Amino acid sequence: MIVDGRSFRATVLTLYPEMFPGHLGTSLSGRAMERGQWSLDTVQIRDFATDRHRTVDDTPAGGGAGMVLKPDVLARAIDHVGEGRPRLLMSPRGKPLTQARVRELAAGDGVVIVCGRFEGVDQRVIEARSLEEVSIGDYILSGGEPAALIVLDAVVRILPGVMGNDLSGLHESFEDGLLEHPHYTRPQVFEGREIPAVLTSGNHGAIDKWRKAEALKLTAERRPDLLAKMATKSTSQG
Amino acid sequence: MIVDGRSFRATVLTLYPEMFPGHLGTSLSGRAMERGQWSLDTVQIRDFATDRHRTVDDTPAGGGAGMVLKPDVLARAIDHVGEGRPRLLMSPRGKPLTQARVRELAAGDGVVIVCGRFEGVDQRVIEARSLEEVSIGDYILSGGEPAALIVLDAVVRILPGVMGNDLSGLHESFEDGLLEHPHYTRPQVFEGREIPAVLTSGNHGAIDKWRKAEALKLTAERRPDLLAKMATKSTSQG
Repeated sequence: MIVDGRSFRATVLTLYPEMFPGHLGTSLSGRAMERGQWSLDTVQIRDFATDRHRTVDDTPAGGGAGMVLKPDVLARAIDHVGEGRPRLLMSPRGKPLTQARVRELAAGDGVVIVCGRFEGVDQRVIEARSLEEVSIGDYILSGGEPAALIVLDAVVRILPGVMGNDLSGLHESFEDGLLEHPHYTRPQVFEGREIPAVLTSGNHGAIDKWRKAEALKLTAERRPDLLAKMATKSTSQG
Repeated sequence: MIVDGRSFRATVLTLYPEMFPGHLGTSLSGRAMERGQWSLDTVQIRDFATDRHRTVDDTPAGGGAGMVLKPDVLARAIDHVGEGRPRLLMSPRGKPLTQARVRELAAGDGVVIVCGRFEGVDQRVIEARSLEEVSIGDYILSGGEPAALIVLDAVVRILPGVMGNDLSGLHESFEDGLLEHPHYTRPQVFEGREIPAVLTSGNHGAIDKWRKAEALKLTAERRPDLLAKMATKSTSQG
């Protein structure tokens, strides 16, 4: 089933095409790919090197350890893919990925993702090709590839028709700016621990109130930064 | 080569073992696995269900959409794995993963990672089995599995002997609390854009100063939160 005829098209530029589709070829995203709801193709950056050694990197100007991806080679790979889709560069220097950006990407036709390796990517090609530097978190990965898989997992999951209807009504963390309240299910008693009485009371008003209070408490404990963001937002929205 | 005889052992509890090792079976981490520097095994949570339908989830107490992973089934799977390694639960409700936590994990013997699915995991098993809830970022994934792959990628990369020596001296983002300065390499002129003159000046003092200033500028623009954290740290450290 392709909802409204759309198919989301992802192209990944990488030196390690064998890392794709990785886990995206299985489960929810793998089935969505088989149904044609999205596609994933890779471009080997090395194919755009022009010397006989197929060199893609060089030493950093100004010295230092590591190697830098050459601007001319990467530019040719990007130009080969063409225009029309947002171009992301996975990088720990990037803007942190948010669920809002995930939603925007999912609403579009597709995405081009450049995976950095070595010490980094020449700054001039980032500017000349308007690459949007995106970070998935404050830790260092082996390269941009695992990060690209995360962006695509988050996006594919919310493409129309990908999730079963049973999941579409889910309340989720970050949806209202808060972490989610705790969950409980049967058995009623687990190792001497009971489900909080309010949840089995049948009083829906009380349940909603309890959940909201727990979500607030947890967010204040673990993520005071999210509460600060909410406060700023409600102030600026009047 | 197993450095000092250690081998890092990762065990992942999941309903989707086919998602592993995913991209970790390739490239740097795949070769490290072949050399015995780390191992990855999966435990199918469903194997610990006891009814004839092998039920692992149930409806949330108090109502709502989605399903909750049953505490008794997950507890049996965790107990089967045994004690002695940190136990992570991948969850958007968790504490954000940091490079400091990655380093701590890499210094240990291994890790047990529980992958959540459905609406969530019963709160009582999180408490009874002391699961450390960890989030890789403020976005929603199809499940805990892609997040577990990220934690392992970050950890395996810094295990002793996994990276080549050529990478060991890398200056990296977050190492000093700042995003990294821009990088440049040959050619000297790319589409009319030159490498900043200071970098080809040979004046190492000036180069260091320029890089530090650029790193500070970029961090202030993109991640004022990191600068705020640095300020707090230097104050509290006297």
